Amino acid sequence: MLLNKLSGTFAVLAVTGSLFSQTVLAEESAETPTIFSAEMKATALELKDTAMEAGLAYELDESLSTEVGPRRVGTPGDRLGIKWAVAKMKALGFDKVWTEEVTHVYWERGEIEAEVTGPYPQRMTAIALGGSVGTPKKGIEAEVVEFENFAALEAAPEGSLKGKIAYVSYRMERKIDGSGYGPAVIARGYGALTAEQKGAVGYIMRSVGTDNNRLAHTGGQREDKGVAGIPAAALSNPDADILSNMIRRGQPVTFKLKQSSKRHDKKVVKTANVIGEVTGRETPEDYVILGSHLDSWDVGTGAVDDGIGVTITMAAAKHILDLPQRPKRSIRVVLFGAEEVGLVGVKQYLEKNRAELDHHVIGAEWDFGVGRIYDMKPGVGPQALNAIREMAELFAPMGVSLNAANDAKGDSDLSLLGEAGMPAVEFAPDGSLYFDYHHTDNDTFDKVDPEAMKFNTAIYTMFTWLAAESGVDFRK
Amino acid sequence: MLLNKLSGTFAVLAVTGSLFSQTVLAEESAETPTIFSAEMKATALELKDTAMEAGLAYELDESLSTEVGPRRVGTPGDRLGIKWAVAKMKALGFDKVWTEEVTHVYWERGEIEAEVTGPYPQRMTAIALGGSVGTPKKGIEAEVVEFENFAALEAAPEGSLKGKIAYVSYRMERKIDGSGYGPAVIARGYGALTAEQKGAVGYIMRSVGTDNNRLAHTGGQREDKGVAGIPAAALSNPDADILSNMIRRGQPVTFKLKQSSKRHDKKVVKTANVIGEVTGRETPEDYVILGSHLDSWDVGTGAVDDGIGVTITMAAAKHILDLPQRPKRSIRVVLFGAEEVGLVGVKQYLEKNRAELDHHVIGAEWDFGVGRIYDMKPGVGPQALNAIREMAELFAPMGVSLNAANDAKGDSDLSLLGEAGMPAVEFAPDGSLYFDYHHTDNDTFDKVDPEAMKFNTAIYTMFTWLAAESGVDFRK
Repeated sequence: MLLNKLSGTFAVLAVTGSLFSQTVLAEESAETPTIFSAEMKATALELKDTAMEAGLAYELDESLSTEVGPRRVGTPGDRLGIKWAVAKMKALGFDKVWTEEVTHVYWERGEIEAEVTGPYPQRMTAIALGGSVGTPKKGIEAEVVEFENFAALEAAPEGSLKGKIAYVSYRMERKIDGSGYGPAVIARGYGALTAEQKGAVGYIMRSVGTDNNRLAHTGGQREDKGVAGIPAAALSNPDADILSNMIRRGQPVTFKLKQSSKRHDKKVVKTANVIGEVTGRETPEDYVILGSHLDSWDVGTGAVDDGIGVTITMAAAKHILDLPQRPKRSIRVVLFGAEEVGLVGVKQYLEKNRAELDHHVIGAEWDFGVGRIYDMKPGVGPQALNAIREMAELFAPMGVSLNAANDAKGDSDLSLLGEAGMPAVEFAPDGSLYFDYHHTDNDTFDKVDPEAMKFNTAIYTMFTWLAAESGVDFRK
Repeated sequence: MLLNKLSGTFAVLAVTGSLFSQTVLAEESAETPTIFSAEMKATALELKDTAMEAGLAYELDESLSTEVGPRRVGTPGDRLGIKWAVAKMKALGFDKVWTEEVTHVYWERGEIEAEVTGPYPQRMTAIALGGSVGTPKKGIEAEVVEFENFAALEAAPEGSLKGKIAYVSYRMERKIDGSGYGPAVIARGYGALTAEQKGAVGYIMRSVGTDNNRLAHTGGQREDKGVAGIPAAALSNPDADILSNMIRRGQPVTFKLKQSSKRHDKKVVKTANVIGEVTGRETPEDYVILGSHLDSWDVGTGAVDDGIGVTITMAAAKHILDLPQRPKRSIRVVLFGAEEVGLVGVKQYLEKNRAELDHHVIGAEWDFGVGRIYDMKPGVGPQALNAIREMAELFAPMGVSLNAANDAKGDSDLSLLGEAGMPAVEFAPDGSLYFDYHHTDNDTFDKVDPEAMKFNTAIYTMFTWLAAESGVDFRK
C-alpha cells in the first residue's frame, strides 16, 4: 500500500437495529421495499459458506509468494507475477483475462551500509527509500541532527543543516484503522527534499512502522514537489532508538551512509494491469470492480502487501464463477501494476478507460493487510443507501459495522476512480498489525492469517455478488 | 546463552503453606528455628523496595547497549565491553575490580548471500553458524535435501548426500522454560558435521528460534566430535517456510550459498572475565557468586543475551554496597568472557580458581532473557534446605514458586562450577519470548522490559544479601 486517506478518522456506527441515523437516511422510510430478493440473499449466504470453507485466497497467496515472491516494478519478479496472475486467472475459469500495459521509470535499490562512526561506533540497519539517489562510492559521513518530527525539520532555518545528515525520529503510532500512518509517512514523502533545502547532505529517518524488529521499512518518496538530490534511508526502529539514545548523551554523533541506489529516470520499464472478467449474463458492459495491486516492494515477498488483496479478489470472483449462472453484471478483478511507486497503474488505467467510467457500477479494493474486516463504508448515491443497508444486515452477524459517513472513494488504487466519480465501498479491516510488516523483509506468507482470509473473502464475495446480480444504481 | 540443561523438565511445586513435600524435608521438623534473623529479613525487604524503585539494571543495560553494543569474542566491541564493565564497576563503588585473561581462537563471520536458484528463484535471509568455514569465492550451488529433524539427517545412509546441500527444517517449540531449545539446537550443534559425513557439500537449517521474523539466528556449532569442513548457515523462519513450501511441490530445488566466513584456528585473541567484589566484613575469603556473560553474538547488541544478566547482577551488588555495612561474606560478580563460543571463560576461570572452589559458598547466574522469575530451584546440602525455604517465603508473595527438586547446578557458565561441586540456585524466568530474539539482530535494548528488570534485580539482591549476610553452610 502506498497511502491515501488513512489519516482520516471515521465516525463508526455500530450495526444494530437501525443502521443509519435518522439524519443520514431521512429520505428513506422504514417501509422501503426489499432491494435484494430472498433468492439473492440466500445465494449470498451460500457464497459466504463456500468462502469460509474453501480457503482459496490463502492457497492462492501461498502460490504467489512461493512461486513468484517479490514483484517490484521493473524486476524479473514483477514480470513473473504478471505471468502467474494471467495463468492463474485462466486456470480459475475467468471468462476473459487480459493485460493492459503500464510503463514507469526504473529505480535501482543497490546496496546500503550504515553505521554510527562516533562517539559510539555501531552498525545500523537501514534501507534506501524508494527513488533515492546514491551516495558517492566511499559514502558520506557527517554529524547527525535530530528532529522530533517532519514539522520540526521544516521549521529549521535555511542553511542550518549545511554539511549535516538530517534525522527525523518520529515514531508511528499503532491504530486499528492505520491512522498513525499519515502523521508518520510525511517524513518519508518529503523529508529528504526538505532536508536538502536546508543544506543537508543526507537524510535518515525512523522507519514508518509499528514493530520493534531490526528490519527497516522502505517506501516511496513523494515527487510532486520535486526530487530530492540527497540520499535518503530509513533506520529500523531499534536502530533509531540506539541513535536517539546516543544523541541524547550530548556529544556530536557522526553517521556514515554508503548507498548505491540509483535513479534511471530515462529507462522506461514495462509492467501491466492484469484484468480478469466474469462476464455478466444481462448487462455485461457494466461491471463491479475489485481492486488490488500486483506489484510489491522488493524486500519481502509481497504476501501481505498486496498478495492478500490479489488473492481475496481472485477468490471472490472464482466463487461466483462456480455458481450455476453468471450474475447480471460483469465483475472485473483488476490487479494494478506499479502501485507502490505512486499509483501509476491505476492512473494509466484511468486514462485508457475514462470513457467507460460510467460502467464501473461500484468498486472495492483490498490493500490493507492481515486483519478481519470490522467496518463497511459506502460512497454511493442516496438512492442506493437501502441496498447498502441490506448488504450490511448480512454482514452484521459477522461483526461488521456500517459507517454512517457516505463518503467512501475506494481504497488505494481505486481511490482515483472514486474521485473520478465511481461509486465505492471501503471495507476496513483491523490494521493493528499491518505496519509491523509493511514494506519490510517481513512481508512474508507466514504473516497471513488463514481464518481472516476466509472471513474477508466471504465478505468480498457476498458484496460482489449482490452488486453484480442486482440492478442497483449506485451512482452518486 | 549457549545452552546447558534447558531441555530438562522441572517438577514445580507451588509455594503455599508447606514449601517442600514431606519426603524431601523428612529430616527437618516444623520446629526448626529461623535461619535468617528478623533484621536480616527486614533488610532483604528494604533491598527489594530499593531495587523495585531504582531501575538500575535497566539504566546500566541502556548504557552497555548504547555505548558498547555487540561484543563477540575478538572484536573491538568485546574489548570495549571489558573496559566499560571495569569502569562501571569502579564507578558503582565495588571494593575490588579486576580482570582475568581468557584466550580463544578467532572466527570471522564474513559476508553471506543465500538464494534459491530454481525452480522459483528467491533471495533467502541466512546467517553463518559460529565456527563455519566459508564457501569457495563463487559460492556453492546444489540441490537441497530436506530432513524433518536432526535424527532424520543422522539416519540418512552414508554417501547419500553426495554433492547435495542438507537442510534440517525442524521448528523449535515455544515453552515457558525454554525446553524447546534442546530438541532444536542439536541440529545446530552437529548438523554440518553429520551432513558432511554423508557427503553433503553444504548445510542449512531452520533457525533455532520461535519468532517469525526474517532475521536468522546464529549460534555455535559443537566441536567435541570434530569440526565440520562444510559451510553451515541458518535460514530465518519465514525463509525456511518458503524453502519447505518449494520443496513440497516435488521438483528439485537448487540453492546457492556464498559465505566468506573463516576459521582462524591459530589466531589467539584475548578477552577476559571481569570480576567485581563486595568485600565481606567477617569472612571475606568466602563469597557468593553472581554470574552472567559479557560477550555476545555480533549481530544484535547483546542487550538481552546477556546484557540483562550483566546488569542485574551488577545492580544487585550495588544495592548491597549501598547498605550501611558490608555483609559478612564477600560477593563476587563475575562477568564471564567467551561464553557464546563454548563456556570458554568459565572453563579458564575454573582452572585458575579451582583451589578456591570451596570458598564459592553459593552461586546464581542470569542468562535467560527478558521475562520475570517464576521459580527458584536450589542445589544445596540438606542442612541448607530450611534456609532456602525461608528465602522462598520472601519470594512467594512475588509469585515465585520453590522447585521441589534440589538438583540445581547453576545456569549457563555457573553450571560448570555447579558440576564441580559449588552449591547453586537457579532462578527460572518466563522464557516464552527469549528465543524470538536470541542470537539475532533483534537482540536490542527495546526488548528489555524495565519492570521485569526491577523485579528480577529485587530477587537477585535479596538472595545475594541473605546468602552473604548469613553463615548458612550450603555445601552439598
